[in-house]
Amino acid sequence: MAGKSRVSDAVVRRLPMYYRHLRELEKAGVVRISSQELGERMNLTASQIRQDINCFGGFGQQGYGYHVSNLKERIAEILGLRHQYHVIIVGAGNIGRAVANYAGFPKEGFNVQAMFDVSPALVGIDVHGILVQPMEKLQTWLDTHNVDIAVLAVPKSVAQEITDQLVAGGVRAIWNFAPVDLALPEGVAVNNVHLSDSLHILSYRMNEKELCEALDAGKQLGE
Amino acid sequence: MAGKSRVSDAVVRRLPMYYRHLRELEKAGVVRISSQELGERMNLTASQIRQDINCFGGFGQQGYGYHVSNLKERIAEILGLRHQYHVIIVGAGNIGRAVANYAGFPKEGFNVQAMFDVSPALVGIDVHGILVQPMEKLQTWLDTHNVDIAVLAVPKSVAQEITDQLVAGGVRAIWNFAPVDLALPEGVAVNNVHLSDSLHILSYRMNEKELCEALDAGKQLGE
Repeated sequence: MAGKSRVSDAVVRRLPMYYRHLRELEKAGVVRISSQELGERMNLTASQIRQDINCFGGFGQQGYGYHVSNLKERIAEILGLRHQYHVIIVGAGNIGRAVANYAGFPKEGFNVQAMFDVSPALVGIDVHGILVQPMEKLQTWLDTHNVDIAVLAVPKSVAQEITDQLVAGGVRAIWNFAPVDLALPEGVAVNNVHLSDSLHILSYRMNEKELCEALDAGKQLGE
Repeated sequence: MAGKSRVSDAVVRRLPMYYRHLRELEKAGVVRISSQELGERMNLTASQIRQDINCFGGFGQQGYGYHVSNLKERIAEILGLRHQYHVIIVGAGNIGRAVANYAGFPKEGFNVQAMFDVSPALVGIDVHGILVQPMEKLQTWLDTHNVDIAVLAVPKSVAQEITDQLVAGGVRAIWNFAPVDLALPEGVAVNNVHLSDSLHILSYRMNEKELCEALDAGKQLGE
């Protein structure tokens, strides 16, 4: 992808955090903020903040800091939040329903238009104004609509197969909640929410101190 | 934290992915794997794999690759997956219920013992064998149990206040689903699942090519 390496993954991961904090500052009526103050809020150094923002051309003035609303708008633009997206949700279990119920998404242009599930117990229910359709209807939907984003909230065993169907049907991005790394063609975006990975990182952090002390003492693991 | 800087965040984030892939390899009957082959599966270079694993002392033999089951066990140990954890879930909405229903967690030692919610519509319901209790009972639970992990699945507006209560009650780790960065004392672990951040990263990736081409062409954003 042309120019893809320009922005590192670490910076991309921080962008939504900038957006959140700037939105809160704007709401609180703050007009300008220095990289120092923004860094303190976000647990980053001032130089890290300046470096991150410089990836996109830099929007501060030496000695004046950043204009909160302007910087927020630029970051919203960078994050693609100034478009409208046609979203479908595949899988109407707890996760699928949680996404459908998330009040903030429509305001940001993420418009859920349809939900699908295999379970007869879920087909026909109304989730936040969206009727859950049977999975057999998915193909017809893809044939007749331009879907930007599919939320994949299905069991691991069927995740790749459904993904292939979605990609063949023209879906541009998969928001993947299945605990599997999907194979995708170039040009289809993906971001994973791997709940169990996240819990494992938490348990790592709970035990990190002990682990590092053992490693520092030269102990071999598994001994 | 002593020795904390030993392992970078990027490596920690990859550990659960190693664990998942090694578990699948083990299930498929694979006994040994080279860093090359493991790298291809995980979209990493062989040298990246060796470097990651060397952070923890390295468990391979030159020319023989890694023993799949051994390496999986060592990584499980590093991730703290060989302990039993007492888990409570605060907030019994879709997210809280999704976590409670996640069949894999008890097998890994994460045992949900109680759920709490403010909503009269949710108090008293049974989620995967756990009765949802009213929030007023949380303090009594904390006073009478050693809670390792609290799953925080509540609105942003009350997240910090409940966190303070949990920390004062001796909770060692917070798995945070509220869209806010919590203030926590040293020694309390946290990992965030910020759904809206994740969706923003996805929309960034959908628009990355265009954005980077514009930046490469020297265009200023917001013009």
